[in-house]
Amino acid sequence: MKPPKHALIICNGEMPSKKIIAPLLKNKPYIVCADGGANKARAFGITPQVIIGDLDSITQQTRKYFSSVPIIHLTDQNSTDLEKALDYLLTHKFSSATVIGATGDRPDHTMANFSILLKYHKKISLLFLDERCTVEVIQRRVTFPAVIGQQISLVPMGRCTGIVTHGLKYPLHYETLAPGVREGSSNEATSTRVSVSLKNGPLLLFKIHPTIT
Amino acid sequence: MKPPKHALIICNGEMPSKKIIAPLLKNKPYIVCADGGANKARAFGITPQVIIGDLDSITQQTRKYFSSVPIIHLTDQNSTDLEKALDYLLTHKFSSATVIGATGDRPDHTMANFSILLKYHKKISLLFLDERCTVEVIQRRVTFPAVIGQQISLVPMGRCTGIVTHGLKYPLHYETLAPGVREGSSNEATSTRVSVSLKNGPLLLFKIHPTIT
Repeated sequence: MKPPKHALIICNGEMPSKKIIAPLLKNKPYIVCADGGANKARAFGITPQVIIGDLDSITQQTRKYFSSVPIIHLTDQNSTDLEKALDYLLTHKFSSATVIGATGDRPDHTMANFSILLKYHKKISLLFLDERCTVEVIQRRVTFPAVIGQQISLVPMGRCTGIVTHGLKYPLHYETLAPGVREGSSNEATSTRVSVSLKNGPLLLFKIHPTIT
Repeated sequence: MKPPKHALIICNGEMPSKKIIAPLLKNKPYIVCADGGANKARAFGITPQVIIGDLDSITQQTRKYFSSVPIIHLTDQNSTDLEKALDYLLTHKFSSATVIGATGDRPDHTMANFSILLKYHKKISLLFLDERCTVEVIQRRVTFPAVIGQQISLVPMGRCTGIVTHGLKYPLHYETLAPGVREGSSNEATSTRVSVSLKNGPLLLFKIHPTIT
């Protein structure tokens, strides 16, 4: 059996600090820059294995700087650069990816990227990471370690039913969250082990970095 | 008939620059700070008419600085500070509000605030404004002036059906947008008059400031 393949995708949004990025590089992930993400990688002294996108955001200087890095130019306007990067990873049988630079900057881009997180999470294990938090999709049930007092947000991207939580300050007991109806943000861990399960719906889990809480 | 009452709500997220804020103050709106928004107002030299919230974010220095401003302390943990501010405006029969500081900073807070935008938009005319764009909910149909090339994003907060656009580069013709299925971000005005209509669903309209496009 081949070992699982992990990638780091760098997008064109707000980059986390070097302190957040450094641990991601330790295990030498395969690094993909989504278009303008290459400008960010360059600024952080990170060399990607490949650059993918419609190339409307990467600067001439960055292209020159990364002249030895393969560039895959895809002009399809029906998919974003992040989707192009994810499709490439799926073709090459990657099992997981951490995505940085997908949040912050323009809020419409952040929302579109959350939509892409929802679209791909069943095909590849995905985690968004930024300066403040990690973001992932909860499939049916998730149990994870937490620091007492750590802020945990549950954010519905549609109607989410039958939500049950354990280890949170404001517990949910077979309840419904939906945009425009009820959110579950700014909850708080009361245990070193938190679990969230749901019956149905697209639910995002935000774990705020304990150092921020 | 009484004149329409307009308010400016200042939240605790990322503040736009003075250049963006200055025009908002010209017509002397009624200014409400939602909890920690008061810290931001103070930093920008803006004095609110009232400060509302559970007061877990306003600093002691800001409280002292605004000692002559009425503070409404509401401890209800089932509503956020933005909701408390909006409820106050509804009670006092305001017809519209511009909200700044509701985006940026933590992405879970941004998402929760978009959910609140959806929740209140039928009761009070609401516009979010940040450094990059304005955000509003499209009810059935909206027509607005645009600059050719201005970026316009349509972001679904649930399944949105029967979307028709005019004056956009990538037109929609009775199509569906939904989180995790299809987004409508980074579209572009091709006319000085753009219209968007839909049959059903919670659809956010982002108008990127023309100076950014």
